[in-house]
Amino acid sequence: MNYRLESLKKHKEWHGKIETKVRVPVDSREALSLAYTPGVAEPCLAIKDDPEKSFELTRRWNTVPVITDGTAVLGLGDIGPVAGMPVMEGKCALFKAYGDVDAFPICIASKDVDEIVNTIKLISGSFGGINLEDISAPRCFEIETRLKRELDIPVFHDDQHGTAVVMAAALINAAKVVEKELGELKIVINGAGAAGVAIAKYLLKLGVADIILCDKFGTIYDGAEGMNEAQSSMAKVTNKSGVKGLLADAMKGADVFIGVSAPNCVSQDMVKSMAPRAIVFSCANPVPEISRKAALEAGAAVVGTGSTEFPNQINNVLVFPGLFRGALDVRARDINYEMMIAASYAIAGYVGDELSADHILPFAYDKGAHEAVAQAVAVAAAKSGMARK
Amino acid sequence: MNYRLESLKKHKEWHGKIETKVRVPVDSREALSLAYTPGVAEPCLAIKDDPEKSFELTRRWNTVPVITDGTAVLGLGDIGPVAGMPVMEGKCALFKAYGDVDAFPICIASKDVDEIVNTIKLISGSFGGINLEDISAPRCFEIETRLKRELDIPVFHDDQHGTAVVMAAALINAAKVVEKELGELKIVINGAGAAGVAIAKYLLKLGVADIILCDKFGTIYDGAEGMNEAQSSMAKVTNKSGVKGLLADAMKGADVFIGVSAPNCVSQDMVKSMAPRAIVFSCANPVPEISRKAALEAGAAVVGTGSTEFPNQINNVLVFPGLFRGALDVRARDINYEMMIAASYAIAGYVGDELSADHILPFAYDKGAHEAVAQAVAVAAAKSGMARK
Repeated sequence: MNYRLESLKKHKEWHGKIETKVRVPVDSREALSLAYTPGVAEPCLAIKDDPEKSFELTRRWNTVPVITDGTAVLGLGDIGPVAGMPVMEGKCALFKAYGDVDAFPICIASKDVDEIVNTIKLISGSFGGINLEDISAPRCFEIETRLKRELDIPVFHDDQHGTAVVMAAALINAAKVVEKELGELKIVINGAGAAGVAIAKYLLKLGVADIILCDKFGTIYDGAEGMNEAQSSMAKVTNKSGVKGLLADAMKGADVFIGVSAPNCVSQDMVKSMAPRAIVFSCANPVPEISRKAALEAGAAVVGTGSTEFPNQINNVLVFPGLFRGALDVRARDINYEMMIAASYAIAGYVGDELSADHILPFAYDKGAHEAVAQAVAVAAAKSGMARK
Repeated sequence: MNYRLESLKKHKEWHGKIETKVRVPVDSREALSLAYTPGVAEPCLAIKDDPEKSFELTRRWNTVPVITDGTAVLGLGDIGPVAGMPVMEGKCALFKAYGDVDAFPICIASKDVDEIVNTIKLISGSFGGINLEDISAPRCFEIETRLKRELDIPVFHDDQHGTAVVMAAALINAAKVVEKELGELKIVINGAGAAGVAIAKYLLKLGVADIILCDKFGTIYDGAEGMNEAQSSMAKVTNKSGVKGLLADAMKGADVFIGVSAPNCVSQDMVKSMAPRAIVFSCANPVPEISRKAALEAGAAVVGTGSTEFPNQINNVLVFPGLFRGALDVRARDINYEMMIAASYAIAGYVGDELSADHILPFAYDKGAHEAVAQAVAVAAAKSGMARK
C-alpha cells in the first residue's frame, strides 16, 4: 500500500482524527444548572481560593496540548504551523487511545523563542502538562529548558526525550540479545540535532560510557568549530578519545550505530567495519540511513528502524502515552530522568520471554505496554519526589 | 436544591466535563501508518501547499476555543483565568451537546490587551472560529475588534453578542405578546458594560429607534462625563431626547426594561411608572434587578430573567451552539450582524404557536431550536457573502 496517498484519502474522509466528548448530563434545566450557571459559580470560587483545585474540578488534570511551531515536522522540515496539524492531531489520537490522555493540538505561528515560550506560559493554566513537538533545534532546547523552569507542570519535548527513551529501551534489549553490557558498549550516534543530542545525554544517564556524536561534517569533539551550544556541551562529555573525522571513521569498531539523521548515509562497508554482533538502529524517516536488509547482509546482529513495515520499529508512540499517563496520575511537577529511565526499562521489560533479534520492542498498539510504562513512571515520580498526590 | 453546593459536589465527582474522543482507527500497524507516520506526511504537505486545506484534512473546521482571561466570570468578576475554567469547560460541553461543535477551554494568564490579542492570533491556526468569554469591558471591545480585523475566521464575544441575540429574540416575541411594534418601543437598558452596549447596538440594527442606556451613575447621554469610548459612541446614537438623571427617571413611560446590571436596583414603583403592558427583562445573575414576582405584581405584562427556575429564561445557551454550527458549516469568514439577526428571528420563530407571556423563548435544551438557528445562520452567511463554501 502507498501509505501516503491512502492517508491523504483517509484524511479527506475523516475530517479530523479527534473530537470533543461530553462527560456530563446537559439535557435538562436541572442538568444545565449544575454543569453551567448558576451552579458552576461554586467550583469557580473554590479554584479562585485555591488554584490547585483546578486539577480536581476541571479536566485540567488529564489535558495535554501537543504544541508545535511547525519548524521540524516529521522528516519534512519547516512546513509551517498549520501544515503540522495532521501530525499533532494524530499524536492526540494516540495519546487518548493508548494513555487515556485528553490531548489537544495547538500550532503556534511564530518562530521566535521568547514569543513561543510566552504563549505557552500564558495558556498553561488550562493544562496538566505540555507536550512540545516538531520544534527545530537548537530553538527547542531553550524553549523546553525555559518552560521546565517556569512552569510547575510536566513539560516534555517528545522528539528529544521520547526518542531517547524508546531508543534506550531498544538498546537495553538489543544488548541482551548480543550479550554485551550497556556500560561497555561503544556507541556512535549520527545526527546531532534535537534527537541525537537528547539520546546521547540520556544514554550517559543510563550508564553508557563511550559515545561519539556525529553530524554531517563529522564527529563532534571538544574544540570543533561551528557547534551550537548544545553540541559544545555534549562535546565535553562524549568522544573522550577525541576521534576526529567522518562518520565512517567513528563507526570503525563500534558496537552500536544509532541514526537519527539522513537517508542512505551509511554503507554496508561501514557496517562491516563495526565490532562483531553489531547493533544498527537506522531511524531516519521515511528513508533510513541504511536499509534493514542491507544492514543484516553486512553482518549486523540486530537492526531496528523507524518504519512500521519491519520488525523492531523504534517508535516513540511506545513512550509518550504511558509516560504522561503516569505523570498525570500522580500530578507530577515535571518529568525527570528517573521517570524516563523507568519508562525505558518498562518498555524493554514488557517484551519478556519473547525477546529475540527480531523482537526487541513491544508493538506500539499493545495497550499492556503503555500500562506498564504508566505504572513504572508513576512509581518513579513518587520515589524521586516529583509526585504531588 | 442548592445548585451551587450540589454543583461543587458534582464537579468533584466528574473530574472534568469534556474529554477527547478518537475518531479513527489506531489499533493496528496499518492503522497507525495511515493516521500517523509515515502516511500523515501527505496531508501535511497538502496543507503546506494550500493552508485552506487544513479545514478539510484536520478537525480545524469544527474546532472553537472558548477563551477567557478570567476578568468577568459570571457575576463573580475578576476571579482569574484558572478559576474561570469550570465555566469555559461547561460552555464547551454545551457547544458539543447542542451544536456538535468541538470546543476547547483556554484561559490566558494576562490582562494586557496586546498580549491577549497576540496570543490568540498565534494559536488561531488550530481553530475554525474563536469564542471569547467573560472578558471585562472595555478591554473586550478592543480585543474583539482587533481579532475580527486580523483573523479570517469567525470571532465572537458571547457576553456581548450572544446576550444581544437572545435578548432580541425575547424582545421580538414579547412585543408580539403585548401587541406593540419593535420600531415604536421605548427601551431602557440598565448596565452599560459589554452586554448592555452590545444589546443597544444590536437593537438599533434590528430597527429599534428609542433606547436609553444607563449605568450606575445614571443615563448615558452625549456629553456626559466619565464614559469609556464604547459608551461615548453609544451616547451619540441613543437617548436622542437627551434624558439626564437616574434609572428611575429613564424608566418613566418606557415600554421595555432590560437589565444586565446589579441585584435589586429596580423597585416596584419604577415598574409601575412604565407604559402599560410593560416588558421587564431582569437578567442580573444570580440575583435579578427585580424579581419576577415583584415585577408581575407591579403590573409588568411579560417578565424574563436569567434564571433557570422561572419561565422565560433569557440564556445565551440558545445562541452560541447553533450560531457557530451555522458559521462553521459554510466556513464563514466571520460572524456578522446579518447572521446574528437571522439567529434572533430563528429563536423567536421556533416558539411558534406556543407563544404566550410565560413562553417567549424555546427551552435551552431543545435541540430543534439549535438546529433552526444553525440553518438560519448558514443561509444568512451565504446571502451576506460571508460563506466560503
